[in-house]
Amino acid sequence: MHQFQEISTRFEAYLKQPGIFPEQPANLYDPCRYLLEAGGKRVRPALCLMANELFGTITEDAFKAAAAIELFHNFTLIHDDIMDKAPLRRGKPTVHAKYGLTAGILSGDVMSIFSFDCLSRVNPVFLPRVLSVYNKTAVEVCEGQQWDMDFEVQETVSIEQYLHMITLKTSVLLAASMQIGAILGGATEAQAALLYEFGKNLGIAFQLQDDYLDTFGEEAKTGKQPGGDIRANKKTFLMIKCRELAGAAATQLLGELLLRDDEEKVEQVTGLLRDLEVDAISRSMIHEFSDKAFGNLEQLDIEPAKKQPLMALAAYLLNRQN
Amino acid sequence: MHQFQEISTRFEAYLKQPGIFPEQPANLYDPCRYLLEAGGKRVRPALCLMANELFGTITEDAFKAAAAIELFHNFTLIHDDIMDKAPLRRGKPTVHAKYGLTAGILSGDVMSIFSFDCLSRVNPVFLPRVLSVYNKTAVEVCEGQQWDMDFEVQETVSIEQYLHMITLKTSVLLAASMQIGAILGGATEAQAALLYEFGKNLGIAFQLQDDYLDTFGEEAKTGKQPGGDIRANKKTFLMIKCRELAGAAATQLLGELLLRDDEEKVEQVTGLLRDLEVDAISRSMIHEFSDKAFGNLEQLDIEPAKKQPLMALAAYLLNRQN
Repeated sequence: MHQFQEISTRFEAYLKQPGIFPEQPANLYDPCRYLLEAGGKRVRPALCLMANELFGTITEDAFKAAAAIELFHNFTLIHDDIMDKAPLRRGKPTVHAKYGLTAGILSGDVMSIFSFDCLSRVNPVFLPRVLSVYNKTAVEVCEGQQWDMDFEVQETVSIEQYLHMITLKTSVLLAASMQIGAILGGATEAQAALLYEFGKNLGIAFQLQDDYLDTFGEEAKTGKQPGGDIRANKKTFLMIKCRELAGAAATQLLGELLLRDDEEKVEQVTGLLRDLEVDAISRSMIHEFSDKAFGNLEQLDIEPAKKQPLMALAAYLLNRQN
Repeated sequence: MHQFQEISTRFEAYLKQPGIFPEQPANLYDPCRYLLEAGGKRVRPALCLMANELFGTITEDAFKAAAAIELFHNFTLIHDDIMDKAPLRRGKPTVHAKYGLTAGILSGDVMSIFSFDCLSRVNPVFLPRVLSVYNKTAVEVCEGQQWDMDFEVQETVSIEQYLHMITLKTSVLLAASMQIGAILGGATEAQAALLYEFGKNLGIAFQLQDDYLDTFGEEAKTGKQPGGDIRANKKTFLMIKCRELAGAAATQLLGELLLRDDEEKVEQVTGLLRDLEVDAISRSMIHEFSDKAFGNLEQLDIEPAKKQPLMALAAYLLNRQN
């Protein structure tokens, strides 16, 4: 069994093989290469390969699927960055910022087709099953992005709606990466379904932790100044919970704070979140989903030693700080 | 055997079955429904179904593939209209004009995934072959759009480059529609390849005719005022050929005309095209490709009576006026 870092390195080498994208038209494929070569942790393809290795030596098909998933993820990044008007990604200008809007749209489109093409090349005996998981997931990711945009302009969002949104936008692709890797390794339906659940719960826990660290993380460990979401008035788990718990006075205070745009705003909102114990509620929610994820992995009828790299990766992802 | 109009009507009924797109999120799927229900001639899905019927009764798989192809075509229309800043499509506001840029991007994305999903549901014995044709074609359509945009800002474009561009942007999807319909009907590789060539040559002839009619068509028959391409300084077959044939004086005149923006511009450029016999050259080019298309169909080892509806459709498409 191989650890995340080794698997990720092997995937990086696979991705660097010549020939994913043709040379011409350069204005179409240069933006694709630019983003793909800008890096990223390659968590999704690694999860696909690690799920695959649970059932034997990593197969060529698993590499194809892993590449498909990474291409799909990068395609969504290009288009999401346009929709979010984001200037930077991975510390560099976003694709549309560097190459323009039309290049961003069309390069994303062609990258998504390359993604489907990579997946279509797996052994035909697996095709109907992996395509079914993949297409369903791809649709869900778009729906998650739509809900996220809808919520931005919506007066109130419930915790349930928020969890549904992050599940679609973030978790199902992690989940599908595991499930597809497992299917291509010869897993049974039940095994593949458990690994899907593992990925899904891990993804939800990870996203909730991301929300948590944005406000309560220490700059020395997270590498970024806390309070970005508060400054941007983002409807994160913390803010939705805060609105839910706030009495009349706290609601009024929060309403006033949201209109401000100074450093004290971050301090005061953070204080309000602590007063309402939203930080503790958030931590317990993260533990709930991470417990579910580890539970899914424990249930899997595979010898425990083989699960160790996935356990280690999950622990690493979920213990970045809290 | 059924004629185009009947087939197109049957496809329309198939498309109207409930359930292609879910109700929610409405902001994601309303734009998809809006464009799909705005109509269109449904030439591509009809070609798929007609190619399928050459080999027996039209199959359920052919309807799935036809829907996939129509969804893909509509996805490209949404994104192309954004890139071209087009305000109208089929006489109605374009998707981005009606719903906004982000809705246009994301609805196009999800429509493209639904397209892949429709195709993925055909009988698994056909999957690898149809996916291979489809993915290759989808990539080519994006490349065609890129070349088209590149040519807009490029000083000179050769006839060869132009033919390559329209082949990718327009013809290969018509060609693939035929090939996929044939494969799903049980055609041999050779039969499917001939039908691909038929669709490709028909598509090139049709696009060249489109260029021709934009300048030399009669308003009473085409329904639009001639000269739109000339007014917009579009690099059509006619203009590329004109530049190729023009001597020093004509080149100078053309350069001056292109800078103008009045009604006389259209008259004078049209006159120049006639002087250089570009109209006749264009007609002979259209005939060359339409002859190739009919030749492909004649070569097909299928009883001639069965080919009649395709012959009739091709004749209709290529005899709108000239």
